[in-house]
Amino acid sequence: MSTRVIELKRSVFESNDERAELLRKELKDKGIFLLNLMSSPGSGKTTTLKATIAQLKDKYKIGVMEADIDSDVDAKKIAETGVKAIQLHTGGMCHLDADMTRQGLDALVEGDVDFAILENVGNLVCPAEFDTGATKNAMILSVPEGHDKPLKYPLMFSICDVVLINKIDVAPYFDFDLEKCKEYIHMRNPKAEIIPICAKTGEGVDKFAAWLTEQIEAAKK
Amino acid sequence: MSTRVIELKRSVFESNDERAELLRKELKDKGIFLLNLMSSPGSGKTTTLKATIAQLKDKYKIGVMEADIDSDVDAKKIAETGVKAIQLHTGGMCHLDADMTRQGLDALVEGDVDFAILENVGNLVCPAEFDTGATKNAMILSVPEGHDKPLKYPLMFSICDVVLINKIDVAPYFDFDLEKCKEYIHMRNPKAEIIPICAKTGEGVDKFAAWLTEQIEAAKK
Repeated sequence: MSTRVIELKRSVFESNDERAELLRKELKDKGIFLLNLMSSPGSGKTTTLKATIAQLKDKYKIGVMEADIDSDVDAKKIAETGVKAIQLHTGGMCHLDADMTRQGLDALVEGDVDFAILENVGNLVCPAEFDTGATKNAMILSVPEGHDKPLKYPLMFSICDVVLINKIDVAPYFDFDLEKCKEYIHMRNPKAEIIPICAKTGEGVDKFAAWLTEQIEAAKK
Repeated sequence: MSTRVIELKRSVFESNDERAELLRKELKDKGIFLLNLMSSPGSGKTTTLKATIAQLKDKYKIGVMEADIDSDVDAKKIAETGVKAIQLHTGGMCHLDADMTRQGLDALVEGDVDFAILENVGNLVCPAEFDTGATKNAMILSVPEGHDKPLKYPLMFSICDVVLINKIDVAPYFDFDLEKCKEYIHMRNPKAEIIPICAKTGEGVDKFAAWLTEQIEAAKK
């Protein structure tokens, strides 16, 4: 499938929280589950999505919004999986808010979608501050970044429903303490689901797919 | 040495560019070289600084400002090297501007410093948009993040005088193409100095120390 690029406009609305709640309600009414996926640059968002889509694409109608400051490399990679992918250009902006998410969704759900994914800008700070209106928030922390990140980026970890710990295959080469990492994440957010994965080999991705299936089914009710 | 924590105030000045030029001029008049070090979360800024300080601390009076949203783990680590270290808390802000940098510098140069370092917030987007007033900008891209990052975060790479490629010891375990990475960096900034390093083992850190020595000496003239 081809990829389409949307140049996002800066939002003109004052209250992002209200716009986000409105979007979430609309998604619920339509039975669409929207996942907002966040991480640092290079944590493996696109690779994780590709592995996850492979497990779910026969079951659900999936659409992906790839947000990036520039370039359309990610949307092209996702389009290779056969699902609908559009590229959102933020024009230098470091995050997406609810109105920008809606601009992307409007383009995405022209086709028929029951599982929509927003791959947010690679950034552990700003995206956490703006509610996109997504049904659930997910983030990826990769092993090479270190297990101390929940101490340094508290807000991001506190707003995520699920934290994927990616690149566990290279754990032997890094000073990464998985138990300490889990402890720090739960310090920020006791309810966060934590799933260790290796997106490259597919290890653990089935657990994430199972978590998503639950959420998608719940959104249909 | 003990660490001190400064809670930064939001800047009240309209023109950050003017404030940055003013700070840069003052630093020049005082013969102080200020390095602004940026990267994604977990690229190894603090480890790189520790290795670099070990090579330069007998030659120069070094002071380090560790910017973080929360926590003071980095300033504590730097203080272990014996140089002056202060922790700057941004209070959730995703970047530092010139006035915030000045708030830190004022606390730092009460002692006598000829080489000051600002470890910026871990973020490849926002810190690139705000001139801190530093004499030179440096950034770290670590191997696990991937060689495509200059395509996705163009501004960051275009404003840096030197790019350190860190964690080259783990390159065999990642699909990282160093030549392609250099090509992409130079596409954004033909003049950027590129130095591959491994902060953990110290490999290549002497080259960065040599580059810094040149800059510090130039600032004294």
